[in-house]
Amino acid sequence: MTKRGNDAVLTGLRVIEFPAFIAAPLGGLTLAQLGADVIRIDPIGGNIDIGRWPLNAGGRSLYWASLNRGKRSVEIDVRKPEGRKLMQALITAPGEGGGIFVTNLSVDGELAYESLSKLRPDLIMVQLTGSPDGANALDYTVNSVVGFPLMTGEARAVPTNHVVPMWDIAAGLNIALAVLAADRRRRATGEGQLIRLALSDVAMATASNLGYVAEAEVNGANRQPDGNFLYGAYGDAFETSDGRHVMVVAISRRQWQALVRAIGVEEALATAATALGYRLDDEGGRYEARTLISAFFRPWFAKRTLAEVEAVLKDPAILWAPYRTTTQMLAEDKRASEWNPMFRRVDHPGVGRFLTATSPLDFSRADRAAPGVAPQLGQHGAEVLRELLDVDDARYAELAASRIVGPRR
Amino acid sequence: MTKRGNDAVLTGLRVIEFPAFIAAPLGGLTLAQLGADVIRIDPIGGNIDIGRWPLNAGGRSLYWASLNRGKRSVEIDVRKPEGRKLMQALITAPGEGGGIFVTNLSVDGELAYESLSKLRPDLIMVQLTGSPDGANALDYTVNSVVGFPLMTGEARAVPTNHVVPMWDIAAGLNIALAVLAADRRRRATGEGQLIRLALSDVAMATASNLGYVAEAEVNGANRQPDGNFLYGAYGDAFETSDGRHVMVVAISRRQWQALVRAIGVEEALATAATALGYRLDDEGGRYEARTLISAFFRPWFAKRTLAEVEAVLKDPAILWAPYRTTTQMLAEDKRASEWNPMFRRVDHPGVGRFLTATSPLDFSRADRAAPGVAPQLGQHGAEVLRELLDVDDARYAELAASRIVGPRR
Repeated sequence: MTKRGNDAVLTGLRVIEFPAFIAAPLGGLTLAQLGADVIRIDPIGGNIDIGRWPLNAGGRSLYWASLNRGKRSVEIDVRKPEGRKLMQALITAPGEGGGIFVTNLSVDGELAYESLSKLRPDLIMVQLTGSPDGANALDYTVNSVVGFPLMTGEARAVPTNHVVPMWDIAAGLNIALAVLAADRRRRATGEGQLIRLALSDVAMATASNLGYVAEAEVNGANRQPDGNFLYGAYGDAFETSDGRHVMVVAISRRQWQALVRAIGVEEALATAATALGYRLDDEGGRYEARTLISAFFRPWFAKRTLAEVEAVLKDPAILWAPYRTTTQMLAEDKRASEWNPMFRRVDHPGVGRFLTATSPLDFSRADRAAPGVAPQLGQHGAEVLRELLDVDDARYAELAASRIVGPRR
Repeated sequence: MTKRGNDAVLTGLRVIEFPAFIAAPLGGLTLAQLGADVIRIDPIGGNIDIGRWPLNAGGRSLYWASLNRGKRSVEIDVRKPEGRKLMQALITAPGEGGGIFVTNLSVDGELAYESLSKLRPDLIMVQLTGSPDGANALDYTVNSVVGFPLMTGEARAVPTNHVVPMWDIAAGLNIALAVLAADRRRRATGEGQLIRLALSDVAMATASNLGYVAEAEVNGANRQPDGNFLYGAYGDAFETSDGRHVMVVAISRRQWQALVRAIGVEEALATAATALGYRLDDEGGRYEARTLISAFFRPWFAKRTLAEVEAVLKDPAILWAPYRTTTQMLAEDKRASEWNPMFRRVDHPGVGRFLTATSPLDFSRADRAAPGVAPQLGQHGAEVLRELLDVDDARYAELAASRIVGPRR
């Protein structure tokens, strides 16, 4: 059995997932990293995301290996009626922390909530879709409609996609949240439920929560792309003399004063601001004066190497950081190293040895689950079927021979 | 008392928050939208984020009004010893779903976990910091170090910040998750705990979960900026003849075939691909052929208006969407309207009337909490002190006169 923390905070919770791509597998990963027993079910040979790039030299997906760590893997052919029955039995298998099913795929018949909850009335099921009406959508086509790419990058009327699949990430965290909220209710009432979540809703709710919708409806304004400036306070990016870049931010008065003092432009900038009618004594005023401020700061950075900048901006009140590539982060930032208890350098068989994170949440009275490795596809088929359904080795061999489950691995 | 769903999934949970900016208030908002009683404590007159842009014409923060909906508000001067004692008493007040405290601010003395947990041993406290060593960091200075801005935008060696505070968003969701995971454990054991979370850990764990760290350590490769192309499969952005832009994605074979058939370049593209040695029959091959594919697609979009594109790409297997500003989203996308049960157009007193979201999670056996409005600052001071600490009106007036709490509002 896959090693998990013995006393992680969600030990005892069992989740069956039938996922693909990013959001749903990330929901399971989040729960697994807190100690839940997460069993990923895939078609024999893997789902559509099994070979997703980046790949290592041997053709193994570094993406899949990263996003499915600490889970158990079972291969089932759900196109076959017997396969569907088997998956249904796994999902509805008895056990106090069990009866939890997460999917972003289209399921019906034996795998629909109505059928599953007949067999296990306390079933918790989370169904992720692209849109609330069930229509397809994925991170990129959700992101394009909520306004952010047209606010990103240099001022011009073309969109800039960000590369992080942030709606998938937020949806994955929402899936984990839904499971725990429904489990809390189930412990109080004994009742399970179906929770629906749409990727577009995650993105649009965020646009609402952060005030973008209010800004459009109340002020009639769309946020405009504005380079690397922060909105509503002072922040900008600068190049150093050695070709590196840094991000500098000042929100509070204390942060602002520490910054201008360190750069040594306090008086000259104040004089210029007064001459141009800017007020630098609150964050809104500094935002309005942002191009002037950056004009004062830019030459200072251009004359210094990153190391020289670092030596001067050492007052902890100054908020700044270099831009780093992933490689630079690993080489320069101790937070991305084994100094950090969240990270361990782990050997992933067949995939490679690399720094691997567990949950960013550190519970004082629960073990941090190990970062873990992803299962080999189908690795736990026989083990899980025995544990949950009392399927013995002979019967597993029959099921594998009929290609209802994957071969024993 | 603020109206909440009568039977939302987290009804009965009470969270005291002492937050600022985005991540911590979003953690509280997430819980409030699922029915928790979230009480936000601020210094008298508001915390540093009270006037954060965007503002409406009357100077009220649309950001604050959006991010603090459905919460109750209490003003306390925590620089005064009596204020700290009062806040301590609120946090540790009895009640089954209470004893939960969330903050991203630096707290010590009476407000440290050690002191609070002496008074209420089952206390759950979530402490968000910038870095795991407690050093300051915020979304922009965390984002700059994890590699993403140097992978965003056109191919060039300068960083492009995305505008969405995605690490704050992910941290806020992690806070809500931490509360529910610790509450689950508390219900089983009676024990509370301190949960530490660092913003940089949220970003770096994501770089690990999505395979970026593996790619750097195993393949020695940093993902390069690549315009609006998707990575590892085919996806790109195109301009239409009426100056709009669309994002088009094809991951599965079915999506790809539906797309090339609709655009009518199936054969010509196949011939060109063969001539150039590209394989179009899997997602990796299409990724390698991406500039060729886009060269075939671009003229087709350039000759058509958005409406014409929409008329042709109506096969639900085709994944595409227009780019929209926030205003266009509200005008064109029914998912961002009251058609969607997640959204209601709500009157926010003093702020404006605007479309407002509740949780994207839709529980079949629990009410969806109303989208809600943000409290007036200090609106619930007298009410909360009476409810939790039996402070009567005369005593509240004394506390307000000594400026230990805000004036009665």
